[in-house]
Amino acid sequence: MNSFSLGKLTCLLAMLHNDSWGKEVEDELKTRGYRYTIGKVGSMDIVKVVAAIETAAKSKHIIDEGHYREAHALYHATIEAIQGIGRGTIQFGEILRTVGLTFAIVRGTVDRPGHDGEWISVCVFGSIGAPKKGFEHDTLGFGYNHI
Amino acid sequence: MNSFSLGKLTCLLAMLHNDSWGKEVEDELKTRGYRYTIGKVGSMDIVKVVAAIETAAKSKHIIDEGHYREAHALYHATIEAIQGIGRGTIQFGEILRTVGLTFAIVRGTVDRPGHDGEWISVCVFGSIGAPKKGFEHDTLGFGYNHI
Amino acid sequence: MNSFSLGKLTCLLAMLHNDSWGKEVEDELKTRGYRYTIGKVGSMDIVKVVAAIETAAKSKHIIDEGHYREAHALYHATIEAIQGIGRGTIQFGEILRTVGLTFAIVRGTVDRPGHDGEWISVCVFGSIGAPKKGFEHDTLGFGYNHI
Amino acid sequence: MNSFSLGKLTCLLAMLHNDSWGKEVEDELKTRGYRYTIGKVGSMDIVKVVAAIETAAKSKHIIDEGHYREAHALYHATIEAIQGIGRGTIQFGEILRTVGLTFAIVRGTVDRPGHDGEWISVCVFGSIGAPKKGFEHDTLGFGYNHI
Amino acid sequence: MNSFSLGKLTCLLAMLHNDSWGKEVEDELKTRGYRYTIGKVGSMDIVKVVAAIETAAKSKHIIDEGHYREAHALYHATIEAIQGIGRGTIQFGEILRTVGLTFAIVRGTVDRPGHDGEWISVCVFGSIGAPKKGFEHDTLGFGYNHI
Amino acid sequence: MNSFSLGKLTCLLAMLHNDSWGKEVEDELKTRGYRYTIGKVGSMDIVKVVAAIETAAKSKHIIDEGHYREAHALYHATIEAIQGIGRGTIQFGEILRTVGLTFAIVRGTVDRPGHDGEWISVCVFGSIGAPKKGFEHDTLGFGYNHI
Repeated sequence: MNSFSLGKLTCLLAMLHNDSWGKEVEDELKTRGYRYTIGKVGSMDIVKVVAAIETAAKSKHIIDEGHYREAHALYHATIEAIQGIGRGTIQFGEILRTVGLTFAIVRGTVDRPGHDGEWISVCVFGSIGAPKKGFEHDTLGFGYNHI
Repeated sequence: MNSFSLGKLTCLLAMLHNDSWGKEVEDELKTRGYRYTIGKVGSMDIVKVVAAIETAAKSKHIIDEGHYREAHALYHATIEAIQGIGRGTIQFGEILRTVGLTFAIVRGTVDRPGHDGEWISVCVFGSIGAPKKGFEHDTLGFGYNHI
Repeated sequence: MNSFSLGKLTCLLAMLHNDSWGKEVEDELKTRGYRYTIGKVGSMDIVKVVAAIETAAKSKHIIDEGHYREAHALYHATIEAIQGIGRGTIQFGEILRTVGLTFAIVRGTVDRPGHDGEWISVCVFGSIGAPKKGFEHDTLGFGYNHI
Repeated sequence: MNSFSLGKLTCLLAMLHNDSWGKEVEDELKTRGYRYTIGKVGSMDIVKVVAAIETAAKSKHIIDEGHYREAHALYHATIEAIQGIGRGTIQFGEILRTVGLTFAIVRGTVDRPGHDGEWISVCVFGSIGAPKKGFEHDTLGFGYNHI
Repeated sequence: MNSFSLGKLTCLLAMLHNDSWGKEVEDELKTRGYRYTIGKVGSMDIVKVVAAIETAAKSKHIIDEGHYREAHALYHATIEAIQGIGRGTIQFGEILRTVGLTFAIVRGTVDRPGHDGEWISVCVFGSIGAPKKGFEHDTLGFGYNHI
Repeated sequence: MNSFSLGKLTCLLAMLHNDSWGKEVEDELKTRGYRYTIGKVGSMDIVKVVAAIETAAKSKHIIDEGHYREAHALYHATIEAIQGIGRGTIQFGEILRTVGLTFAIVRGTVDRPGHDGEWISVCVFGSIGAPKKGFEHDTLGFGYNHI
């Protein structure tokens, strides 16, 4: 697992954190000194998803809320991830669909030539569907940015 | 792992198939009687990505190539996955970026009320970036459809 | 008219149902054993358009509301049709425009090699424009899916 | 039919011009003094579709090719129509799909308060699908502009 | 400055109207007999931006509100400008961002072969960012249409 | 002019560099110690526009080509600017339009609370239109990112 990229670890964290494998993912993140957090949000309002990710990132000190550039980096990674969830349009309730999502945010360095500085990735995994119990299917989105 | 959804297994397959965990993912897919395949494609042309996924799905009998509805279901799941890769626009070389991707396709039933029939999901994971070695970062896309 | 495709009949139904030609269109639909319905919806909220189409499809038994795959098929056909209405963005009131629409939904088989199973098409025809009487023009959208 | 809007006549012309009803549509267009034309184009290249519509409009004198504003009005109506065909992305061959289309262009006045001047509408109807014979389904797009 | 295009003057007006250069821009606009106006709007709701531009255009007689074609021309130029602001999606508050904008609208003739008639351009300049004081950066959008 | 934001200076540079005002803009950029460059590109291929901006930024040392994060920051600012040019779709020749553009790239610090570090902005100004001499109009796009 020590060969896994920052982005892959982020996605595995979002999908496996409740599973035995999730423990290993977290151990690897800690070994690397990465900052990370996991959260959940369910809504028909995209704004609540964006806000939940930002709030978690700030409260868990993944980003420093006094630095606009950090908030800016996270914001674009978040919107990219939501584009994967929306597949073509960034709308949930406006077009009668709702989401139940788990998100993972990971920030750290990348050990590759030219990749100096820090990077942030966001993975959102869960379900999207009609506002009717069970009428939903899996969905996943991923964003990545320099920070 | 027997509680994992079809989509989650597809994503884990795309990301872990070369890892020890990948063996467990494949075992679970086989236990459920799911059809699945894994492939790789690297290109600046999106059409090659779409074609690689379709070709793999046909040659590995994930879909029956004589049935248009199966090709139609796969096609839309594929485009959805590529939307996650592209994040806002479905273009690679046209805007000077290239991708190196591993894709997984899984087809099978879903054991939930109302989810009768079969479903297909496509996960594409890899790197996207400039046509310059190492100037690339992780990317992931996911699509899902009834078949 | 017996050579007309399922999609063409859907569009003619949406545009001509109040006209003498509409009677012939409906006769052809009945002859083929197609399920179909017609409805109207006017709003600045897209969600009301999506909901009106879904509700009509369920109440007129075009789809079986207990099967998620049928709702999923209709949903994507509906969103496709609304994309034609919106032309570039799926937004009405958010960008200060309103719609007055007639929709037709048709479900049935297609007598072509490889086109086994059933298909569903949605045509939405009407006006789009400013929220000021008469400041509007024609608009049309069309979606199609396997079901 | 004398109550039909300019846009509705355009769509009926695209769909029915080979049918007995098409004769009546053309008669109505002539009665109103509308300029119109019909054409066909099949391609994986969107640019060929745009060019075919523009060329037909010029050669049939629907627009005056010496006036940029007329070409500009037609261009935007054409792109709108192609957005309906593409449903979410204006790409054909780039994402492995091809189209076989009939287009109708109609230009004329609209007899409603406030609708002074001339308007142009474009309807494109036909099939979209995989580059494999028969693996295609109906598609329709519509655009409208002041000219 | 007499060689500046209508669009360039519109952008300079939006950016410089409070500056000494702005006086020269306005003088040039007046010399040409162009109709123009400047306004401000800040909101998380796109609809308020669209409405502010339309209202200013009507009240300052840039367009004649009794003619739908003029409102239609302005509307599309406005949406184009907002697309530049939004960069990829026409959403502000829905995705947790807010704008503070100055807009300029200019209408007039263009002294180039083939460019007969009048044209309208809209430039929107200001800031976009998080709903937190100072967490925002510059943004600019531009639209242009025949009228 | 010393109150002008980084983005405003970038846009003025793109529009005025051949004018007497342009000299003042450049003086202000130099006073602030900003890195900047101006270039021109005309094409039906978007990839040539993206490449021209990247090449100019590297050769003029606006970005350090050995650092992927700098190329990444510029890339996203460039694509944002091109979205303003394209207004709804990032396509030029594919939909039968061509561009003749002047671009300006500016990099530097922003003297506002929370805006620590450096920022980069890209403004693209010029014409877009049919591949026919004179059948074109003004266009402008703007992007901004942390670097």
